[in-house]
Amino acid sequence: MTTTVARFSQLFIPTLKEAPADAQVASHKLLVRAGFIRQLGAGIYDYLPLAKRALTKIEAIVREEMDAIGGQEFFLPALHPAEIWKESGRWEVMGDNMFRLRDRKNGEYCLGMTHEEIFTAIARDELRSYRQLPQVWYQIQTKFRDEPRPKSGLLRVRQFTMKDAYSFDVDQAGLDKSYEDERRAYEKIFTRCGLDFVAVQAHSGAMGGSASQEFMVRTEAGEDLVAACPKCRYAANTETATSRIAAEQDGPGLPSPEKFATPGVVTIEALSQPPHGVPARRQLKTLVYMADEKPILAVVRGDHELNEAKLQTASGAQLLRPAHPEEIPPLMGARAGSLGAVAFAKAPVFVDPALAGRKDMVTGANEDGFHLRGVDVERDLLRHGKVAELRTVKAGEGCPRCDGTLDVFKALEVGHIFKLGTKYSVSMKANVLKADGSETPIVMGSYGIGVERIMAAAIELHHDQDGIVWPLAIAPYRATVLTLGKEPELVQAAEEICAALAKAGVDVLYDDRDERAGVKFKDADLLGIPIRIAVGKRGLAEGKAEWKRRGTKDVELVPLAEVAARAAALVARETGVGQA
Amino acid sequence: MTTTVARFSQLFIPTLKEAPADAQVASHKLLVRAGFIRQLGAGIYDYLPLAKRALTKIEAIVREEMDAIGGQEFFLPALHPAEIWKESGRWEVMGDNMFRLRDRKNGEYCLGMTHEEIFTAIARDELRSYRQLPQVWYQIQTKFRDEPRPKSGLLRVRQFTMKDAYSFDVDQAGLDKSYEDERRAYEKIFTRCGLDFVAVQAHSGAMGGSASQEFMVRTEAGEDLVAACPKCRYAANTETATSRIAAEQDGPGLPSPEKFATPGVVTIEALSQPPHGVPARRQLKTLVYMADEKPILAVVRGDHELNEAKLQTASGAQLLRPAHPEEIPPLMGARAGSLGAVAFAKAPVFVDPALAGRKDMVTGANEDGFHLRGVDVERDLLRHGKVAELRTVKAGEGCPRCDGTLDVFKALEVGHIFKLGTKYSVSMKANVLKADGSETPIVMGSYGIGVERIMAAAIELHHDQDGIVWPLAIAPYRATVLTLGKEPELVQAAEEICAALAKAGVDVLYDDRDERAGVKFKDADLLGIPIRIAVGKRGLAEGKAEWKRRGTKDVELVPLAEVAARAAALVARETGVGQA
Repeated sequence: MTTTVARFSQLFIPTLKEAPADAQVASHKLLVRAGFIRQLGAGIYDYLPLAKRALTKIEAIVREEMDAIGGQEFFLPALHPAEIWKESGRWEVMGDNMFRLRDRKNGEYCLGMTHEEIFTAIARDELRSYRQLPQVWYQIQTKFRDEPRPKSGLLRVRQFTMKDAYSFDVDQAGLDKSYEDERRAYEKIFTRCGLDFVAVQAHSGAMGGSASQEFMVRTEAGEDLVAACPKCRYAANTETATSRIAAEQDGPGLPSPEKFATPGVVTIEALSQPPHGVPARRQLKTLVYMADEKPILAVVRGDHELNEAKLQTASGAQLLRPAHPEEIPPLMGARAGSLGAVAFAKAPVFVDPALAGRKDMVTGANEDGFHLRGVDVERDLLRHGKVAELRTVKAGEGCPRCDGTLDVFKALEVGHIFKLGTKYSVSMKANVLKADGSETPIVMGSYGIGVERIMAAAIELHHDQDGIVWPLAIAPYRATVLTLGKEPELVQAAEEICAALAKAGVDVLYDDRDERAGVKFKDADLLGIPIRIAVGKRGLAEGKAEWKRRGTKDVELVPLAEVAARAAALVARETGVGQA
Repeated sequence: MTTTVARFSQLFIPTLKEAPADAQVASHKLLVRAGFIRQLGAGIYDYLPLAKRALTKIEAIVREEMDAIGGQEFFLPALHPAEIWKESGRWEVMGDNMFRLRDRKNGEYCLGMTHEEIFTAIARDELRSYRQLPQVWYQIQTKFRDEPRPKSGLLRVRQFTMKDAYSFDVDQAGLDKSYEDERRAYEKIFTRCGLDFVAVQAHSGAMGGSASQEFMVRTEAGEDLVAACPKCRYAANTETATSRIAAEQDGPGLPSPEKFATPGVVTIEALSQPPHGVPARRQLKTLVYMADEKPILAVVRGDHELNEAKLQTASGAQLLRPAHPEEIPPLMGARAGSLGAVAFAKAPVFVDPALAGRKDMVTGANEDGFHLRGVDVERDLLRHGKVAELRTVKAGEGCPRCDGTLDVFKALEVGHIFKLGTKYSVSMKANVLKADGSETPIVMGSYGIGVERIMAAAIELHHDQDGIVWPLAIAPYRATVLTLGKEPELVQAAEEICAALAKAGVDVLYDDRDERAGVKFKDADLLGIPIRIAVGKRGLAEGKAEWKRRGTKDVELVPLAEVAARAAALVARETGVGQA
């Protein structure tokens, strides 16, 4: 990106009066209206010049912070031979999310969704000794995911740019340090990009590994849910968050479960009504899932909600899905609505900790139209079952770390860091020699940032009714200049300001179009350019121009000769760097 | 790319003693040996950190020169819905060269080989008036081609990075100017990247359009053939080159062709031997091709070689292939070896101009085992046939423009520019309003540069037996520093030089490895770093360090305090810029 004066009249900035009918979220509406993006297909977008400029600035920030922690930039293929994904076992795991294709010789390939396999293969082939470690490798590269329901503009797409980094250490202590380096680099990146974010505990999903954190931006446009404690700053994705809930007082129960008829009663709600009147919190909800195509049972309290991500973690499954209705009776002896896990030995049973110690509970009898009462969780389920976090926390529940109360809000993930451990190095045999001469699998971490996501998240956070309000660091242009009228002296002053801005390293969009000032003001607001300089007759008479910061209401008169230096100082202060 | 001191001991530079067994060309051997690239699959390469640095510098040069001619950078998808390629008609034309795939909903997609379709669609949807023109749009982006025989390392690959630019003008004069801007920008780009190149007339192929030029680097590693005149600087790809050849003196011939038996004679060579003894230059060679699946005949002189690209141009076919042996007899009445085009009306006939005016020629009789003699090209072929350039020129033939003699050499294409005209705007209905209010199809140009090709071509041109000799502008590091010994004062001086170089904006690779100086010298040569600074005891005693330019033999002693300024001056002089 060269710092020259860009003339609006010559640029391709196809603004629109209306947002597309299907656009729901602010970033989608504004990116289309302001001429940043166009849709090519479902979840596939053209990035037009303004977007490319913003993305280039985001990438420059990411690159600087990756380089600052010793990251070495690679550029790896998007087209991957199937074999390498079969080695790690993820050729199957990725299912329909992976784009697959065959070449002219009928060889199997996929489009890379992520690059653990490829980077691990390089490490395996090229790294021999602990002396070569640590290594931090990254790239900024195009990824493909066949998202089932692309939507929300750039928030759920099928092709996107990702900064993915991978760390390689000889031991866990090394990984801990690499992970911490990345975590801090991520904090700097998001801060520099103007994002308020929260780092939360997260679910590792198909990535595997022992620990992970997501970097979340709080916005209604997000599709994740975060539980956070305002008091102690505990924060976790609801896929892993836990909470304190009030203890329940149970009666003594029965010496053993007792079957009773519940004809037609197949929901928690129905059983809570007369004639049975069993409160939901005294019921057990039993759900059948297929974990890597083998059945498992999940048991939560009647009024609680199962979290599938937690069940996946508990079961260790790579692929988890609810059992199909027809799969249930052969296993359970009854249909959904009459299921229970009392003395059930035909599949692993996972029981939520909120049920630990509960007595006198009611559950399905595994016989259509019957339930059991007097169930003692310890006695009847936990001899064969396992306690595991399964429940989705709710707002208003107690913080698991302090006496605060949890808030639950929607959030948008902009980054995710994982301690992978040896998941990939073991399956793909990426070993190095330790100092004592023995072989050890490399201990890995994986760290991802969605580049377009940062752009969209910045807009979700920073916009108003008139348009985008770009953070200075990632704005497509940092300043825009226009005249209030067409008099030659105004034009001359504007051109001089533009030249001075460019010379000071501030990239400027000169709105030289043959349009009324009102139109130009509106477009400057829509495009969201942070610094707006307007040259009018009144101000010019005093040797001044109007200075306005996008997102504020104040217009200041600034001496012409000071505009460029003032803008440059602002850029330096708010971006921590010169021009990208 | 931040200008800090890179420490060799911490970097991933997996050099090898041996080049891969299958590597034929210098760039392939050296990029692998010096740790720049690794192969992931056939024609698919990992770019390791050194390569990424060189590529980033190449891209920066390309971007600067594109921006300088008013180019606006986009970033478009690699995943294209099939429909858009069907609009232009190239969904079929691209055949097996295009990677095709289906998404989870069975929708048809391809991976972009080039982006005429996508850019034209944007222009169609967004440009309305001549006032919005000209526009020059470009991107630096990943392309995919299912190359039938990937080979030669980076020279024939299936995934690569391309700078593709497209110009949009209201008329031919506009295109002429846009094309000329690009041509000059290309000259600057290749010059800045250290490539000696020649711009040649070229064949437009599947791209279509009226004119095109290729930028060629002369190297035995190339797969194109260029015919060039040292005298007048005429230069053309042999796919379009013409030449002057000596006129032939024919006898008067016969009043009409006369059939004679030639049992078993099915080659030009056999017919030139006794008992027939017809010199090859008196024979007609008749070849059957399928042009978009319809038969055509090509006729060249017996000792000349048909050029398929020329036949494609002549026929206007999008897809051209030799007829299969079994397709010939039903059409011709005979098999290959006895074919001719005398009075042939069942398919279009193209006749090379070298045959114009020839008499008393011999050709197949379209009856197995028979030929015709006394053939008069004008009388017997050109009443129904058309003259068209078909012949491949050969070294030593006369220049078509002056009295010089053509040289023919192997060359590697690094860029290609096309005057597309209205091929895409007509098929995809991309029109604008002219000043007079009437609609006109946009007049387009298309301009491509292979980014990795530049890197490989630079190595083909600049290497020696010890390794790569990078042009300063695109070297992964511009300087390397090492010590001749391990004494602390040497190390301290080396570190000071490194710091001074970094401060002066010269990116430097400090070889701090615990290795002998000999090993470091060898690696510096293999990696090809342009400026090598060695700090030894003798020099240091005089306050000096050894300065050596890669590719020269001279070692100079330079005062320590002057090293950085001297390097920075050299960089400024040879690259025309500061650091990328």
